[in-house]
Amino acid sequence: MNSSIVFILTLCLLSTCLEAQRPCLTLTEEGVAKVQEGIGISALFDTKLESIKKEVDQQIELGFDVPIPKDMAGGYTHERHKFNYKLMHKAGNLYQFTGDEKYAKFVKDMLFVYAEMYPTLPVHPTQRSYATGKIFWQCLNDANWLVFTSQAYDCIYNYLSADDRKVLEKDLFIPFANFLSEDNPRFFNRIHNHSTWANAAVGLMALAMKNDELLEKALYGLKDDGINPYELDNDGGYIKKEGVYQAGFLAQLDYSFSPEGYFSEGPYYQRYAIFPFLVFSHALENNKPELKIFEYRDNILQKATMALLHLTDPQGNFFAINDAQKGMNFRSYELVTAVDLMYSISGDDLLLDWAAAQNDIAFNETGFIMSESLKDYSPKSIGKKSVFFGDGVDGDEGGIAVMRIDDSEALFKFSAQGMGHGHFDRLSYSLFDDGGEVLQDYGAVRWVNLDQKGGGRYLPENKTFGKQTVGHNTIVVNQKSQYESSVKKAEEHHPELYYLDLESSQGVNMVSAVENNAYANVDMHRTVIMYADPAFVNPLLIDIFSVKSDEASDFDLPFWYQGHFMKSSFDCEKNGSSLTPLGEDHGYQHIWKESSCKVEDEEYSFNWFANEKFYTITGATEKGDEIIMGRSGANDPNFNLRSDPVLIHRKSGRESATYFNVIESHGKYSRLTEIPNQPFGQIEEMSVDYADERYVVCSFANTENIWQIYFSLQDNGPKSIHKITVNGSPITWDGVYKIVKSKK
Amino acid sequence: MNSSIVFILTLCLLSTCLEAQRPCLTLTEEGVAKVQEGIGISALFDTKLESIKKEVDQQIELGFDVPIPKDMAGGYTHERHKFNYKLMHKAGNLYQFTGDEKYAKFVKDMLFVYAEMYPTLPVHPTQRSYATGKIFWQCLNDANWLVFTSQAYDCIYNYLSADDRKVLEKDLFIPFANFLSEDNPRFFNRIHNHSTWANAAVGLMALAMKNDELLEKALYGLKDDGINPYELDNDGGYIKKEGVYQAGFLAQLDYSFSPEGYFSEGPYYQRYAIFPFLVFSHALENNKPELKIFEYRDNILQKATMALLHLTDPQGNFFAINDAQKGMNFRSYELVTAVDLMYSISGDDLLLDWAAAQNDIAFNETGFIMSESLKDYSPKSIGKKSVFFGDGVDGDEGGIAVMRIDDSEALFKFSAQGMGHGHFDRLSYSLFDDGGEVLQDYGAVRWVNLDQKGGGRYLPENKTFGKQTVGHNTIVVNQKSQYESSVKKAEEHHPELYYLDLESSQGVNMVSAVENNAYANVDMHRTVIMYADPAFVNPLLIDIFSVKSDEASDFDLPFWYQGHFMKSSFDCEKNGSSLTPLGEDHGYQHIWKESSCKVEDEEYSFNWFANEKFYTITGATEKGDEIIMGRSGANDPNFNLRSDPVLIHRKSGRESATYFNVIESHGKYSRLTEIPNQPFGQIEEMSVDYADERYVVCSFANTENIWQIYFSLQDNGPKSIHKITVNGSPITWDGVYKIVKSKK
Repeated sequence: MNSSIVFILTLCLLSTCLEAQRPCLTLTEEGVAKVQEGIGISALFDTKLESIKKEVDQQIELGFDVPIPKDMAGGYTHERHKFNYKLMHKAGNLYQFTGDEKYAKFVKDMLFVYAEMYPTLPVHPTQRSYATGKIFWQCLNDANWLVFTSQAYDCIYNYLSADDRKVLEKDLFIPFANFLSEDNPRFFNRIHNHSTWANAAVGLMALAMKNDELLEKALYGLKDDGINPYELDNDGGYIKKEGVYQAGFLAQLDYSFSPEGYFSEGPYYQRYAIFPFLVFSHALENNKPELKIFEYRDNILQKATMALLHLTDPQGNFFAINDAQKGMNFRSYELVTAVDLMYSISGDDLLLDWAAAQNDIAFNETGFIMSESLKDYSPKSIGKKSVFFGDGVDGDEGGIAVMRIDDSEALFKFSAQGMGHGHFDRLSYSLFDDGGEVLQDYGAVRWVNLDQKGGGRYLPENKTFGKQTVGHNTIVVNQKSQYESSVKKAEEHHPELYYLDLESSQGVNMVSAVENNAYANVDMHRTVIMYADPAFVNPLLIDIFSVKSDEASDFDLPFWYQGHFMKSSFDCEKNGSSLTPLGEDHGYQHIWKESSCKVEDEEYSFNWFANEKFYTITGATEKGDEIIMGRSGANDPNFNLRSDPVLIHRKSGRESATYFNVIESHGKYSRLTEIPNQPFGQIEEMSVDYADERYVVCSFANTENIWQIYFSLQDNGPKSIHKITVNGSPITWDGVYKIVKSKK
Repeated sequence: MNSSIVFILTLCLLSTCLEAQRPCLTLTEEGVAKVQEGIGISALFDTKLESIKKEVDQQIELGFDVPIPKDMAGGYTHERHKFNYKLMHKAGNLYQFTGDEKYAKFVKDMLFVYAEMYPTLPVHPTQRSYATGKIFWQCLNDANWLVFTSQAYDCIYNYLSADDRKVLEKDLFIPFANFLSEDNPRFFNRIHNHSTWANAAVGLMALAMKNDELLEKALYGLKDDGINPYELDNDGGYIKKEGVYQAGFLAQLDYSFSPEGYFSEGPYYQRYAIFPFLVFSHALENNKPELKIFEYRDNILQKATMALLHLTDPQGNFFAINDAQKGMNFRSYELVTAVDLMYSISGDDLLLDWAAAQNDIAFNETGFIMSESLKDYSPKSIGKKSVFFGDGVDGDEGGIAVMRIDDSEALFKFSAQGMGHGHFDRLSYSLFDDGGEVLQDYGAVRWVNLDQKGGGRYLPENKTFGKQTVGHNTIVVNQKSQYESSVKKAEEHHPELYYLDLESSQGVNMVSAVENNAYANVDMHRTVIMYADPAFVNPLLIDIFSVKSDEASDFDLPFWYQGHFMKSSFDCEKNGSSLTPLGEDHGYQHIWKESSCKVEDEEYSFNWFANEKFYTITGATEKGDEIIMGRSGANDPNFNLRSDPVLIHRKSGRESATYFNVIESHGKYSRLTEIPNQPFGQIEEMSVDYADERYVVCSFANTENIWQIYFSLQDNGPKSIHKITVNGSPITWDGVYKIVKSKK
């Protein structure tokens, strides 16, 4: 061999080597090499690889389809294009891990069909979105496409010829990225989960193409978007966030989360939004390590991931606050991706426990790392703790608190509005145990992606019922929703945290919050206490709700209990011969009035059965109080609503009122043994012993003991000393509250 | 040692040995010795022993209570006495297995408290049963007490002194047995599950006391009971069975089951009745082996056990036909006892598979045998097959058929009335898959043992709705129930099996049955086909229902679908401003009419979602047909009914009609991935091409194929040749039916 040949070979190798700095987005050359070495000896990853191989091999066999876009979500073209980008992503990774060129060829072939179609593709014919896409009915889905496809492109980059890449970038990727950014500033330049997807999509493709101009837009937004600050999106949310002028990915990180990682739209949307945050950050970390993106804003992405994991009920489902489809949980694709990625960054053992519970791994390097780490690890059960998350960029715009004792969990919501997906439900709570929902949040009126139900979009009843106050477990004043159901008005205010104690060693979790703007001249203050006492099998939920108005008003407190009504202390026969709606608007028009009656005693009790368990609400009552039993489903021409029961405690023509309720979970009944165990609640007496603007004193009793709760409504100083006279006896305590238990 | 001492010792040993022929009912000396040897080396049994020991030790610690009887089912005294007899039974067995006398003492002490109370105990104060008990509100529960207590007594027999036994037998057991027999002939001398319990209870105690006189009564009944043949029990059933003059345990074996082991009241009650049958038979086998009780009536008890196991849905729940509380399943105490006992008799490996699925064993010798046998056994999954059970003592009074292909199961019911617990539901079916109920049988309106709901008894709506025809998936004529809801009239007739094919290798299960007496001058003939074809993901349920009346009549065919209505071909808006009941009686008064509309096309389709799956009913329609959408819960003052949806296909003013429906299960949707898969059914066209008294020809089609079904309604000869002309074309086939699939 002569030296010139050696020289040429060396040149070629160098060029190959340079070219071979692929993949470089969420996969790395080094990582891929490790995965390749580990194949066959890492059980979890091997299983994953085999299942994905089987699926992709089948699709290669079948051949693919790239239809002309036409349908809404749920329809064929929509679902097929979604399927396509996931398929390309899987095939790309398979090519990297197995080296089998058939996978690279499959991605290439599909990309070229898209590249042929795209240049002449008009916007999607549906025209139903504030930002209509080309492949899909909304740009949001087009951004999804690009997030996955950019990674697939990266995986086969070296397989493609330079000419191939030139065609794909010119005809498909660059126009695609431009369409999502310059052509759709309303979509690209918001502080919103839509824009996070847009920024990440453009950013990932920029990194894949090494296109700095596009990367700049992705990170910092469009310079001049010309958006009218009062424009609304399809969900009724504002395009522009007041006072925020930044845009782009870094601005999303700055403004989307509270300092502890809570996302104002709630966990259902946070789960959706976290994915582009993490995937793009992962690629930035591999390409722009100088950004230290995972340390950005004091590790905000790590906090956001942990927040999400903790915003799940005992069955692992995300709390269905705001617009949320029930059933989405911590095993979702997005959370599996998040847990594995975050573990690869932080090495936190807690994440190993979560991954073990997910029983799934991501199909990438981080999934391989997880698979290896779980090999010799004995997972512990996940002990979720009580948590509080402040809302808002500075964490001071109200918040949400999860109280947890044993298997009981209560989510108390006093957060800001949550943008277009928020509900008018301030000071509401929902209650859970290991059997599921005890007091529910209805969630969204929507079947995501189901063509049968309005193409999978939000249904009209989401606005007229799902978002309305009466659909939640919080007080409705004069049968109107909070803030007159106006997002604009609601966004101007947020509730205030008044007192928080989630650390008490005495079996007490307590959260107290105030909302004084939801109704004109009405002040509301609710305190929710989860209380464990050996006298009761399970923790009690104690609920003290004070409301005060400038004029005589009607107050309704609904309890959306889940299960079958068993027995009540009051005599409330169900209407037999006809049902009519409970009202005309603000959600009342959607509730059939099954029954109503005046309560004559000093307390009422209401016992129901669900998930093989018994529950009882016992509440203090006053003369004139009324109980209404209802069921959702009225004025629902297309059968969009579930038929769910509600109990409403009404106080009419009052300037102020104190609702005092205790919820017991106290018994079991198995249909297999047919043996009931403690079918009845224990609480016999309830009373509000004192109530003015400064204090409330309540008590409840079983046959043996009486519990008194002293609470200061205006002074939350931890050392303040309070003295009042209740029923002729002086009482005194220091701090916000005191619970006194004594023998009867 | 001198010889006289040896002689005395030998005598003592002999006497001990004689005395030691205990236990002798369901435990034996030999069996107990084997169990004792096996403790510590038989894992399943050890676990069982430990858990029962823990429970009984706790109770010994707490001390027991024998309250003065007062309450109905669900109340304290009722539940405590139930708890007591189970506790004595467990403690007795523990004494045998561990030899620890504290358990014998516990049983003895409790028995003496009962013996002290019993002689002066009046009948139970409730007086609500046709046979009021003493310890409980009904003799039935007193018989339960004796079945368990007799075994406990047997276990501690040798621990007691002769004087102890004398007191217990004289003051408690003999009067107890006499009360259940001589004093309550209506209870003791029927052919009914109540009397089976009575006979077994008295018989077991007779064997425990070696009392031949009582044993005679148990086996052969009371000689002269003086019962009026027209007397009814609390459930509306006749005390006496027409034409049956025998009584006692052997008569129960003769008359309670069909030759293949089906029990006319249905599986829920069969599960309850099988227990005394088996326990007493077990004791008879140990004491009167010459009776060969397990071979009696061609192994009827073995057949009955296998029948029960096969009358379960894919989740193992008993089909909720007739009066039945849903959720009772093959893991119940009674079935665990039955499976283990039957295995110890037959050694059938199939029972090992069932026991493995039960994941539980009986706490006795047979449970130990099962524990040992499962040690080295690798259980197979239980492949339940399609089965048919004729009803009636000779198996020729109609019957029920379970069609099973893959995970789909349909139960078609054309059995006799089922005594007082029967429903007016002839020719109805229910449909299931691995997700649960698809088309439901409502079951009984009752919460067994729950004091909150009428003391756990049948609620009024059981009679006015639960039993009524419209509450089931079968035709209602002129909005009246079959047999005018009269048990007496219904017991005079039974449907007839017309054709049965559960063995076809061509993916066809077919059952066809006739009922011509349920309505005056109305003939009904229904054919249900489960049909698997590669064109459809899951088997279809094809349903051809011919009805003919002497005069113009209204026909209603309800489908009690489970889940949420998604989309229909017809435009049926839900009433928004008021709901009224669908009718005034025969169950219609309990259904809210949500919507109704005329169907204009030649077929209708109705698509719904449940358990993450999609289903579609497609039905042929004619001009004037109406669809009614309803929901149970009207005229239900105490909220006893569930709020369940129904679709009713109405044909009015017709002398004859042919309903032709096909039910598809065709898709999936996970709330975790939010990806719908095949959300719509495939069937596009449905028609009844020919219908007269002799033949029906129907067809359905998807986009590619058309399926025609030829059916002979009057000639079920397997070799008959049929020729007719349909739409101008002659067709011919031999045998009852033919299904022809062809390209469109």
